[in-house]
Amino acid sequence: MRIDGRAFRTIWLGADGASVEVIDQRALPHRFALRTLRDAGDAAAAIADMTVRGAPLIGAAGAYGLALAMAADPSDANLSTAHGALLVARPTAVNLRWALDRMRARLAPLKAGERRGAAFAEAVRIADEDAGTCERLGEHGAALIAEAWERNGRSRPVDVLTHCNAGWLAAVDWGTALAPIYKAHRAGVPVHVWVDETRPRNQGASLTAYELLGEGVPHTVVVDNVGGHLMQHGRVDLCIVGTDRTTRTGDVCNKVGTYLKALAAHDNGVPFYVALPSSTVDWRVSDGVREIPIEERSADEVTFVSGETASGAIETVRVVPRGSAVSNYAFDVTPARLVTGLITERGVCAASEAGLLSLFPGEEGDKAA
Amino acid sequence: MRIDGRAFRTIWLGADGASVEVIDQRALPHRFALRTLRDAGDAAAAIADMTVRGAPLIGAAGAYGLALAMAADPSDANLSTAHGALLVARPTAVNLRWALDRMRARLAPLKAGERRGAAFAEAVRIADEDAGTCERLGEHGAALIAEAWERNGRSRPVDVLTHCNAGWLAAVDWGTALAPIYKAHRAGVPVHVWVDETRPRNQGASLTAYELLGEGVPHTVVVDNVGGHLMQHGRVDLCIVGTDRTTRTGDVCNKVGTYLKALAAHDNGVPFYVALPSSTVDWRVSDGVREIPIEERSADEVTFVSGETASGAIETVRVVPRGSAVSNYAFDVTPARLVTGLITERGVCAASEAGLLSLFPGEEGDKAA
Repeated sequence: MRIDGRAFRTIWLGADGASVEVIDQRALPHRFALRTLRDAGDAAAAIADMTVRGAPLIGAAGAYGLALAMAADPSDANLSTAHGALLVARPTAVNLRWALDRMRARLAPLKAGERRGAAFAEAVRIADEDAGTCERLGEHGAALIAEAWERNGRSRPVDVLTHCNAGWLAAVDWGTALAPIYKAHRAGVPVHVWVDETRPRNQGASLTAYELLGEGVPHTVVVDNVGGHLMQHGRVDLCIVGTDRTTRTGDVCNKVGTYLKALAAHDNGVPFYVALPSSTVDWRVSDGVREIPIEERSADEVTFVSGETASGAIETVRVVPRGSAVSNYAFDVTPARLVTGLITERGVCAASEAGLLSLFPGEEGDKAA
Repeated sequence: MRIDGRAFRTIWLGADGASVEVIDQRALPHRFALRTLRDAGDAAAAIADMTVRGAPLIGAAGAYGLALAMAADPSDANLSTAHGALLVARPTAVNLRWALDRMRARLAPLKAGERRGAAFAEAVRIADEDAGTCERLGEHGAALIAEAWERNGRSRPVDVLTHCNAGWLAAVDWGTALAPIYKAHRAGVPVHVWVDETRPRNQGASLTAYELLGEGVPHTVVVDNVGGHLMQHGRVDLCIVGTDRTTRTGDVCNKVGTYLKALAAHDNGVPFYVALPSSTVDWRVSDGVREIPIEERSADEVTFVSGETASGAIETVRVVPRGSAVSNYAFDVTPARLVTGLITERGVCAASEAGLLSLFPGEEGDKAA
């Protein structure tokens, strides 16, 4: 997608065919910078220090890291070493293990001399597949936005509310919750996005707003408290959010606060959609609220806020008094009963086991193992 | 209430009997400082620059300001001039006009020589009445907390969630939503408070947390997104919030985001109470969502965050990218159907016209005029 008029992915093979370029996301939205990864150590560091973040992007970065390792030393020993070193860069990222295991399975049977080329080809394929999944999902979701435009008689832009950043910066391209918005916007459907700030890490105000600026999509940043008021007054046509994990029954575990917006949508008759690549469905889990453990992250994310000072420096300030306890639950679970539909790469379905199985027949047995 | 072990009100007559002392709330929670008001101009400036804030406190500050004016010049001309000058310090504050009008009505019939003493006496009375109203309201609300403790078999502290700051710093003493908590805590009922940060102005993280620290009440600051997750998991026994305006039917207009917490409480069977002095009831309004205009405040409150740097300076940082639009709706309306009860200075009643009239019979006719 575009930044300052120029098209980017979050990760790509360098012009020299031997290095990998990524957008350094740590200083966004205040600074735009690229970072070149020249070996597997660079890739592991970029994953660990959050130069790259977002599950799909972390997977792609791991794959490229293993390709860089094979370019330096395609031995069995190095394949094993690099796989291990990259895996621990973010141990809880499911996509990282998935991508690294896929790369190893592809490369292990090959002769050492064939591994460099095959590794770069496979990493490119993983990145392309992710972009393709998000793009298809975007097309299915864009149809919902177009329908909303028809429903309002094409009288005004469609107002979409989103929470957190489920955009292309978290993936390779297009994103999940934002892909329908980009597809609709490019198709000429007028759309305006209410961007939840998304405390405590402010991914909405920083990354989502930044993405929408780059694509020229009209948007307005609001604090997380405002969405209910907007929905009470007919200012939201539909909500679209992402998900980190979706149960077989359609419960959605996403950034904390998603549940509150889903309640407001339900109370005001506003459709509430969740956009997901089917890889986020966890077929083993039935009851999201009871079964999904919610990560508790560092209190510092709440206590301190970073931003740009008047002089242009990046500064961090304390906003909670010394002595006060702080809790930082990172996700919550929105029960399927509050979700209007799931937007997937194969189409839109009900947030239910029957809905998911209608699009992904047989997946249940495969993944429940 | 207490700060660092010492009892304070937010405003009081100085030891010299001729000046007024206030807590300077602008640098809380990072700096504690007092400010002395020596004349009506000082009082107007303190109201305008938000040294003092919160409707009841602004009213008391206006009354004291008029007393300072009478001390300097008790003439009819100055009574009129000072009334006007103080009134424009915060033109939208209903309590300010109410207090100034009450002062003028008390003083105008008196001879000039009697006005100084009568003015200070009336200002003290206004402050005392506010403190008394909040204290009685606190006693009624504390009974609800004590009941929750009995319901859990006295097995653990009662978890109360609150939003924004409806504490003693917004009033003269005790506060509204926090008064029941202080009363319960002092009565030996163990209570723990979940403090919503309350973006964009962070009155929860700054003022509510600061108040609770001073009184030694256990509390945990969370971002506004977290309350739903807490309620889903049985971590909240009851919610208590304040209100800026309450309709005759029990709809509650309070800090934006209150509605989202009320929805979560309703969805999880958590009692949701609103604490209010009866002066916030607007008997002319029946439908809060449709009839109450919601103030839109400066985008800067969302775009910029202030806090303390590592070096101890107060700094302001930008958290929204340049070029993104920002909206800042300051309040929302929680429909009465989501409110378990109203905690008033005369007791607890249903959030309905019948409920309010059971405690305040005849008020309807008086104030609907």
